[in-house]
Formats: sequence, structure tokens, C-alpha cells
Amino acid sequence: MALPHAAPAQPVDVAPLGAALTSTQSSALFKSPGLEVMRLVLPAGKVFPPHKVDGEITLHCLEGELELSVLTDGAEQRQRLRAGQLCYLEGGVTHAVTGISDASALVTIVLGR
Amino acid sequence: MALPHAAPAQPVDVAPLGAALTSTQSSALFKSPGLEVMRLVLPAGKVFPPHKVDGEITLHCLEGELELSVLTDGAEQRQRLRAGQLCYLEGGVTHAVTGISDASALVTIVLGR
Repeated sequence: MALPHAAPAQPVDVAPLGAALTSTQSSALFKSPGLEVMRLVLPAGKVFPPHKVDGEITLHCLEGELELSVLTDGAEQRQRLRAGQLCYLEGGVTHAVTGISDASALVTIVLGR
Repeated sequence: MALPHAAPAQPVDVAPLGAALTSTQSSALFKSPGLEVMRLVLPAGKVFPPHKVDGEITLHCLEGELELSVLTDGAEQRQRLRAGQLCYLEGGVTHAVTGISDASALVTIVLGR
């Protein structure tokens, strides 16, 4: 579902999706020269496969539970994030995210590095 | 209250503070070369006075209600944010934030511009 991106100072609803989660797609909320924010929707068992971006990211679990896998020099570090928990990663770090239960998260990405 | 900053991939609790809000200070959660995240605690009536930063910011209301005032060329634009709403501002924009009810918010700041 392609929604128009938010303008500066425009409120965007990022409350838990609840029952609507399984029928909602991941979506970009806005993108500016230095920052991109998306909502990642991961029903239980769904995997956002390994990838990396140049800039730092934050991952903020809004509902459910996620597992973040960080791959560094061939070693994998796994970390669970429950609703109301946030973490960050430095730029250039390969990572994947899996829905442990039906989950959604805000992903904030620093651009232009 | 100065807490140690979080390391990469370390979960940080950003759930609503609830009854602890009025006894909790604003605090930095972590800072990396390109990104800083803090939790802003604004009991009802408290004002975070006008200021600006070079990079983009996001303001994510975690609980309560906030008013964001954006000052552009002498004109003031006010916007309410309730729990579960987020907005962003471009870099260099003077803004202030006021607690309408007892509120806390995540503030994410792009650094190094």
C-alpha cells in the first residue's frame, strides 16, 4: 500500500496496528536528504533478510516481539526486542530481522553518509 | 539522572513511564557519529524552549500529549502530537516543545551535517 509520504511537522500514526497487522504491508513514512523512516511489519515467522545500509539505524519495536540478527565477520549475534524496546546499529553492519510474534517496528535510517 | 549510553544492538526500554513520569528526567539514550537519541520528559506545562539543530529530527510521542511549535521567518506553526504519533523536521528549523499533558517523547537527531 503506497501512502503519500508525510511532510515536515505532519503527524504520522505509528501506534500498534493490533488486529490490522497481518493485513498491513511495510511502508515508508517519509524520506528527507538525511533521514528515512519506515514501518516494518513482520508477522510471526516472517524474515527481513540480511542487508546493510551506510548510515546508522534505529529499530524500535512497536508491538509484538522481534529478533535482530547482527552478522559481523561471519559471527551472528541475536537479540530479542519486545514492544517498547529500541536499539541502534552502526552504519555498514549486516543485519536481518525476524518476527517472533506478530510484530511491527519503526526503522530510522541515517542517509547520505 | 545520568545513565550509561546504550551500545549498538543493546535494547533500551522506551515504554511509557506512566506514574514514574513526573519523577524522571530527560536523558540521552545513545550517541553515535551520525545519530543521537534522547527521551524528552515534559510534564504538563513544561516547555523545552526554542532551539534548532543542523540535522533532521524526529519527535515520537510515547505518552501524553505534546505541542510542537515551529518558528519559520517569524511565523509560528503549532502542531499537537498524541501518544503513538511521530513527525519530523528538516534541519535548521527553530522549534519548541510543550507538554500539554504529562508526556514523554523520543527525539532522534541526525548529527554531523
